[in-house]
Amino acid sequence: MLRHQPPLLSTLALLPALSGTLLPTSAPAQAATPGGLLPSWNDGPAKQAIFDFVRATIRSDVSPEDRIAVFDQDGTLWVEHPMYTQVVYCLERAPAVVAKKPALKNVEPFKTVLSGNREAMAKLSMRDLEEVLAATLTGMTVEEFNAEAKKWIETARHPRWNRPYTELAYQPMLEVLRYLRDNAYKTYIVTGGGQDFVRVYAQQVYGIPPEQVVGTAGGTKYGYGKDGQPFLTKEPKLLLNDNNAGKPEGIHLMIGRRPYAAFGNSTGDQQMLEWTAAGAGARLTMLVLHDDATREYAYGPAAGLPDSKVGAFTPALYEEAKNKGWTVISMKNDWRQIFAFEQ
Amino acid sequence: MLRHQPPLLSTLALLPALSGTLLPTSAPAQAATPGGLLPSWNDGPAKQAIFDFVRATIRSDVSPEDRIAVFDQDGTLWVEHPMYTQVVYCLERAPAVVAKKPALKNVEPFKTVLSGNREAMAKLSMRDLEEVLAATLTGMTVEEFNAEAKKWIETARHPRWNRPYTELAYQPMLEVLRYLRDNAYKTYIVTGGGQDFVRVYAQQVYGIPPEQVVGTAGGTKYGYGKDGQPFLTKEPKLLLNDNNAGKPEGIHLMIGRRPYAAFGNSTGDQQMLEWTAAGAGARLTMLVLHDDATREYAYGPAAGLPDSKVGAFTPALYEEAKNKGWTVISMKNDWRQIFAFEQ
Repeated sequence: MLRHQPPLLSTLALLPALSGTLLPTSAPAQAATPGGLLPSWNDGPAKQAIFDFVRATIRSDVSPEDRIAVFDQDGTLWVEHPMYTQVVYCLERAPAVVAKKPALKNVEPFKTVLSGNREAMAKLSMRDLEEVLAATLTGMTVEEFNAEAKKWIETARHPRWNRPYTELAYQPMLEVLRYLRDNAYKTYIVTGGGQDFVRVYAQQVYGIPPEQVVGTAGGTKYGYGKDGQPFLTKEPKLLLNDNNAGKPEGIHLMIGRRPYAAFGNSTGDQQMLEWTAAGAGARLTMLVLHDDATREYAYGPAAGLPDSKVGAFTPALYEEAKNKGWTVISMKNDWRQIFAFEQ
Repeated sequence: MLRHQPPLLSTLALLPALSGTLLPTSAPAQAATPGGLLPSWNDGPAKQAIFDFVRATIRSDVSPEDRIAVFDQDGTLWVEHPMYTQVVYCLERAPAVVAKKPALKNVEPFKTVLSGNREAMAKLSMRDLEEVLAATLTGMTVEEFNAEAKKWIETARHPRWNRPYTELAYQPMLEVLRYLRDNAYKTYIVTGGGQDFVRVYAQQVYGIPPEQVVGTAGGTKYGYGKDGQPFLTKEPKLLLNDNNAGKPEGIHLMIGRRPYAAFGNSTGDQQMLEWTAAGAGARLTMLVLHDDATREYAYGPAAGLPDSKVGAFTPALYEEAKNKGWTVISMKNDWRQIFAFEQ
């Protein structure tokens, strides 16, 4: 059984609490510098922190090969509500898995997932969901998985915007990725989501190649087909749980050096930001605050959620960010535009 | 206890069998194209295979981001005899470990290692050696390990040439690395050796950054010091045994796509070469044959060694290479010059 990280799963249970939450409006957003760098950002401390950081690391001669910037994905680079995209994928793939193994049809949790009853699905236990994830993410060759996930991501649509998930990347963050790369930074995704899943579309959506995606990873097993050709099968064996402390551990495993910049949005990113901030010299640590219920969603400290939700931007994390001088990005105030399709 | 791969350990036992082995001389080496590409290579089928491959992948529009080339390290990029450099490091670090934990002084295998008696050391069991490796490679922060390994590699010398190990990289392979990079290939080391160890010097010796070193890797553990600062400790827990089937598995984990070119020299590289060769279109799979007892060493098929040695270039691998059309590089005939210092 593939052990999946609690944040990925707890979202489902969390959803009803979020829907319909609205925040009081605050000060109107400031005007952006038109035509300049980071055009989707309003002028303000968040945008300034990015400019100051790049200037400082270039001035202090941080060598180009040391310029590493890491980004959480869900909720930091693209929309994570009402459900992590990968969880949607697993639930929607379940019928195909059952079609291949009809014995599962009347067995829980597959019976509930196949019913399409969202309310019943939201009540599935973490153990149930792990079973669905393991069945849909493992037991096939890496090529089969890549082909299935690619086909799905090309056609699946987000229920709120009725657009492909790949259009729900945050335009301001795409600009930051490009700006950092233009300044010789290597940009990495460091996600609690499945490494193989995110790799399928990261190049197209973020300009980030597969080898620069670090995520929760299972093992593979090398074997030979009847024709003698070798293949790799995805195994239900967890190698790296890339959440919380697993993020700096995964960064060490996959990158081998401390990043200069780290972007996150939840307690799952806390240790990655701490690890980045603890390096010498200028470092950039930023947290995206989801405080725009109109254009996107409002949750975490902005919605007054209790501190106990795993993976959320808790009030405690908000406090730590303030105490340690990490920059909080207000989606409402710092982002002039959230999605490319808004133009 | 850190489980280490048999190849790393079996070398010690293998050494007496190798010393003094000499091969009959074969045809004289052909003249090199002076001043051209790959100047340390003699003209011949091996050099030609590299040129043909690069031309073919450029002609067939293999996109630059798909251009991945992987290289085994020990015996492929630098000298692996009379002992893997990392094993020498572990044996030479043992006194410092014992100095910190004096209770180990009279306990085996540390007692034997401290004696300096090479004959007694060669008789240590695999289990004994694993204990020495675990004690010298884990239990410290990643920064402490990096600093120790860096200091050692700057001063340690190979007994035969009395030169730093870092000067024992094969000049023809350094030229191949550069030639492939000049053609937009990303060059990776995929080694059975320790990932953290090789990362310490890979940039300096091979021009390969830490994130492009895939190796046998242990876990790390994130924690906080008394000052509240986070650190990562190297744990005696094996995450990836990057040998044999572990090589394609490690390539999938760390790179996420199939290489176009793979270079090795032993059965530990067999699956990596198979995996590379099984991709569509032009692929390059090469094996370095150690058949130059005068300028380097002669072992494997060149020395008529039996087929049973793990990690060696066995006669069976030699047969597979011939049957599958992999290119065997004869150090004696294909390399005009082996080390940079020869000039």
